[in-house]
Amino acid sequence: MDNKLLTYLAEHRDEHIEQLKNLIRIPSVSALSKHKDDMHACSQWMADSLTKAGLEKVEVMQTPGHPIIYGEWLHAEGKPTILVYGHYDVQPAEPLELWNSDPFEPETRGDKLYARGATDDKGQLFIHVKAVEAWLQTYGTLPVNIKFCIEGEEEITSPNLAPFIEQYQDKLSADIVLISDGPIIAEGQPSIEYGLRGMAGCEIKVQASNTDLHSGLFGGGVPNAIHALSDILSSFHNANGAVAIDGFYDGIAPFTEQEREASSKLPINEDQIRQGLGLSSLYGEEGYSYYERTTSRPTVEVTSVTGGFQGEGIKPIIPSKASAKIACRLVPPQVPSDILDKLEAHVIKVCPVGVTVTVDKLLRGNPYITPIDHPAIQAASEAYEYTYSKPALYTRGGGSIPIVEVFSRVLGAAVVLMGFGLPDENLHAPNEHFDLRNFDKGIVTTCKYWENIASLKA
Amino acid sequence: MDNKLLTYLAEHRDEHIEQLKNLIRIPSVSALSKHKDDMHACSQWMADSLTKAGLEKVEVMQTPGHPIIYGEWLHAEGKPTILVYGHYDVQPAEPLELWNSDPFEPETRGDKLYARGATDDKGQLFIHVKAVEAWLQTYGTLPVNIKFCIEGEEEITSPNLAPFIEQYQDKLSADIVLISDGPIIAEGQPSIEYGLRGMAGCEIKVQASNTDLHSGLFGGGVPNAIHALSDILSSFHNANGAVAIDGFYDGIAPFTEQEREASSKLPINEDQIRQGLGLSSLYGEEGYSYYERTTSRPTVEVTSVTGGFQGEGIKPIIPSKASAKIACRLVPPQVPSDILDKLEAHVIKVCPVGVTVTVDKLLRGNPYITPIDHPAIQAASEAYEYTYSKPALYTRGGGSIPIVEVFSRVLGAAVVLMGFGLPDENLHAPNEHFDLRNFDKGIVTTCKYWENIASLKA
Repeated sequence: MDNKLLTYLAEHRDEHIEQLKNLIRIPSVSALSKHKDDMHACSQWMADSLTKAGLEKVEVMQTPGHPIIYGEWLHAEGKPTILVYGHYDVQPAEPLELWNSDPFEPETRGDKLYARGATDDKGQLFIHVKAVEAWLQTYGTLPVNIKFCIEGEEEITSPNLAPFIEQYQDKLSADIVLISDGPIIAEGQPSIEYGLRGMAGCEIKVQASNTDLHSGLFGGGVPNAIHALSDILSSFHNANGAVAIDGFYDGIAPFTEQEREASSKLPINEDQIRQGLGLSSLYGEEGYSYYERTTSRPTVEVTSVTGGFQGEGIKPIIPSKASAKIACRLVPPQVPSDILDKLEAHVIKVCPVGVTVTVDKLLRGNPYITPIDHPAIQAASEAYEYTYSKPALYTRGGGSIPIVEVFSRVLGAAVVLMGFGLPDENLHAPNEHFDLRNFDKGIVTTCKYWENIASLKA
Repeated sequence: MDNKLLTYLAEHRDEHIEQLKNLIRIPSVSALSKHKDDMHACSQWMADSLTKAGLEKVEVMQTPGHPIIYGEWLHAEGKPTILVYGHYDVQPAEPLELWNSDPFEPETRGDKLYARGATDDKGQLFIHVKAVEAWLQTYGTLPVNIKFCIEGEEEITSPNLAPFIEQYQDKLSADIVLISDGPIIAEGQPSIEYGLRGMAGCEIKVQASNTDLHSGLFGGGVPNAIHALSDILSSFHNANGAVAIDGFYDGIAPFTEQEREASSKLPINEDQIRQGLGLSSLYGEEGYSYYERTTSRPTVEVTSVTGGFQGEGIKPIIPSKASAKIACRLVPPQVPSDILDKLEAHVIKVCPVGVTVTVDKLLRGNPYITPIDHPAIQAASEAYEYTYSKPALYTRGGGSIPIVEVFSRVLGAAVVLMGFGLPDENLHAPNEHFDLRNFDKGIVTTCKYWENIASLKA
């Protein structure tokens, strides 16, 4: 990469930021029906922007929900194809009174641009649009084939994206899916999230007698739904904090040597985390560090429980019903439906006599991992080091973005999560902002990434 | 007892029932402040009625709440003293639309008098007033010494009665406390409740981190308040259904041979009970029958549990707080404060690391028992057999009436629960009623009881 591109970017910086502000000014809140017209306006704006950047066959594609925008540039014969995924929808801006400026009138203060969507995800998505434009304007061609798939429902759990990917898997086919929709680990310290946990969720309902009973008249004589539920919930973990469901850990590999080395470089201070949470001690599966437990080990967490009389004071009843909701986080090779089946079998096995129990299986999302030594990850690492002058760190995320696994599985592509946000940029919260120095670095890093990928075999 | 008394009662029956109707017409609802004047009117009506019956030193005594009425007749020198306890307050009549007649305009249909308070407790209390009056009118004297203590707060948990008994223990001193405020076991089958369970209640609160946490970011790394609470609740009972709290059963005696024989005569069909509750099986402490478990064995029942996100769907958090409420039923010689201390010690002992737990001790009521072979019980049994032509059955109640134990303990008296209601008379519910044949039998049984007691040593 030569100075021509950097010069072009410097000369057009103000113009790019003005364009980004115009994108942000469209209040594309996917969750609120009053913004339906804004969603359409925003999808059209994005499509125009892709066309202006030099992408071809740009299309606003309808779904049962908000539209998805597609565009491509496929003239790098024999070179890999990168599919850029991002989203043009944003979270609601409320509570408005906590913002220091209008959430939909972006304001630059120092290096930071304040507005809803600045870092999540308009600012980060626009990096890729401007990277395409800069490269084409400078060289008249791209070093790789590029596709864009930009959805408008990420903030409402992407209900229509997975079917869209299935339906258009030929159109979307790519070697790499590139996503800039998150933070690097710290200011000036690039990092790559190479894995995400999956999710499985269910509700457990216990039914004892056909009505709540007087604890004086019936106490001691009949089953109590809360007792039964407590026994069930208490049976999920053994004394050393491990999950006690048969087969739960089947096939799970420990950290590779490479992962262990990568994680040792992460700035994690368990004592600081503990203090910040107001805990006397952290807790979890014996034999694993806090970082391993929260990223590379699967979990079963009870997220809510309810049963009996919920009013003030003690109403001395024997409750007939009790229920709990469970959220599991999964790691490869766990499969949500299999884990839910095992959890159900366990619940049925340990359920005390006299009550009936049902398990409603509600949530499923596959875990995902791209090995650190995958060429697409290593190319990203080198691109980061080029702009940030520091080697990238490698992290696994404990949370779940189910669509990542869908992209990987359906398209057979490696997913690369190349974030340019910072951890404290208030995404989903008032005073969201984006550091424009990372906007600048992001465009250069992306351009460099394409160059790196171009040198790989397609 | 001769025919003079029966003749007197027959001649005055209509008059007595008209008087009872007048008592019922006063809507003495203790729970509702709009009935404050009615409460005063009713207490004055009761006092006048005692005076008219021939009782002396009748007094409407003020308390911080509703007044208590006292009266006495103490001229049976060398004879035992019976304190009659009852209450003139009633439950609210709502929901009014479910009544077939005005709840405060008593209506006779067949043998039954329909009105709020008919069986609980105006009808049953009035039996004793009319028994005194009939005896004095017939013989000019009573065979025993009699005191009346009639409160107006029974339906609101008697907040001022225990202190009143403590304050006036000399004035109230008696050998026997006689209470007619409940049912016999079945129509035509007299029964005596010779014991009641006590109660202890508390709330258990678990605190983990200082806020709910994202189960993706923190799952597996930190304690979960619901997990900890489930472990605690699950530890209260062992696998055979017995309470696993150290010292919980200390000093509790099994059924005496007499109790075992008495209970074998009770019309209890466990299978019918199970089916009525929609249960595949009953449940509880191994080695005890359903009847024993629900009356003579103490219990620990979790009455409610709550924790985590209570809205719709699964919000994948690790909850920072969870809580449960507990109601124990106690039998002699258990003491509520001691049981609450043992429960708290147990909770602290089993509480998992990383969370803090508190136990708020909220409810206390002592258990009570009068042995079946106590002369005051046997005299009641003989009086019942005299009027009902059937031996009385003996039951222990699983519920709690804490004031019974206070009477017994403070006054050093035997308490006799001599009910004349029937189990299906809708007390606390719409269409409450009282079978007037039991009103008639009740007066005779009471008169007979006094005669029986008179033959005992004071």
